[in-house]
Amino acid sequence: MKNMIYLKKGVGRMVNYPNKKGSFKRVKVGHSNRGMSFESMINETNEYYLANNIAMIHKKPIPIQIVKVDYPSRAGAVIKEAYYKVPSTTDYNGLYKGKHIDFEAKETLNKTSFPLSNIHTHQIEHLIDIYKHGGISFLLIFFKAKDEIFLLETKYLEEFFVRSRSGRKSISYRELQVCGHLVKEGIAPRIDYLDIVNKMIEKA
Amino acid sequence: MKNMIYLKKGVGRMVNYPNKKGSFKRVKVGHSNRGMSFESMINETNEYYLANNIAMIHKKPIPIQIVKVDYPSRAGAVIKEAYYKVPSTTDYNGLYKGKHIDFEAKETLNKTSFPLSNIHTHQIEHLIDIYKHGGISFLLIFFKAKDEIFLLETKYLEEFFVRSRSGRKSISYRELQVCGHLVKEGIAPRIDYLDIVNKMIEKA
Repeated sequence: MKNMIYLKKGVGRMVNYPNKKGSFKRVKVGHSNRGMSFESMINETNEYYLANNIAMIHKKPIPIQIVKVDYPSRAGAVIKEAYYKVPSTTDYNGLYKGKHIDFEAKETLNKTSFPLSNIHTHQIEHLIDIYKHGGISFLLIFFKAKDEIFLLETKYLEEFFVRSRSGRKSISYRELQVCGHLVKEGIAPRIDYLDIVNKMIEKA
Repeated sequence: MKNMIYLKKGVGRMVNYPNKKGSFKRVKVGHSNRGMSFESMINETNEYYLANNIAMIHKKPIPIQIVKVDYPSRAGAVIKEAYYKVPSTTDYNGLYKGKHIDFEAKETLNKTSFPLSNIHTHQIEHLIDIYKHGGISFLLIFFKAKDEIFLLETKYLEEFFVRSRSGRKSISYRELQVCGHLVKEGIAPRIDYLDIVNKMIEKA
């Protein structure tokens, strides 16, 4: 059910959506993201990119500290005690047109700004390092209340991050409209952030 | 203790090893890898690359299917039931000199060949796809009995993989000597596989 999008009556339709194996998955889609998690939107987009041989971008597994494992049978191990670890890097990375892609995705219910406390400092530093090492890195911000997604290039994120040390600790919605790129939402791909990455590559 | 290398008497020495935070970690090192896990050797190498601003290469967390989580306190969640998932990609990826790097690492006790059954088919396919998308991908093979590590470029891995469908299901040690690159072992970095990647970049 995780990949289902719930819609208001009348605005949804069914599409056959190819996955990596070449088979089809039936998903309800519409033009609103209401009810679909941001993570699901990104994963669905990445599946589309992968299935269509456009890009190879994956979500990294959640880092877990495993403490206790049981082996009740030869068939499989059961983890009985484990803890969430703080991620040392970002959630997504991969390869597109020979370029290393790395990004973090965050959502906010806030209508007027994106609080920088939403993202770990070491994740911002990681994005800056990726940028310095010649990769393409950015932050995707989902304004839930407005149903709008912005892509913010790391060079701007860095400026806001530096500012936050002595001043404002958030990025205003207006600033995002100016410095960020609004991500086009559609059916397939769901949120075409690589369309913006294309422009970033052209400019570079 | 995970990063300690156990040595035969007299061949070890202590070095101060810088980590990302700028502080130093004291590790016992020697010229033999005996007793150190292959994973530890790679992780230590990657830490060295990261600390010295050479490359950003990380091991991906193990993918886990979480079934049950307890919240005994506000402080933290405890995972009470989870299962190992089959990894859909490789263990390591990252960024070096603006290039996307992706590899899998495998070890064998076998002295004369590396059985291809040691690596999942979809991992081989992933490495081939990375290569086709303009990234640099390879397999690191550790021959434990010989204490030798080989880097095998994906283009050769693909040939052996194709052969395995109708013929020999392993890569002989002799073939690895011819088609692979022996990885230099040292103190810091522990196993300098990027030295070979440099040659791969020059040739490309």
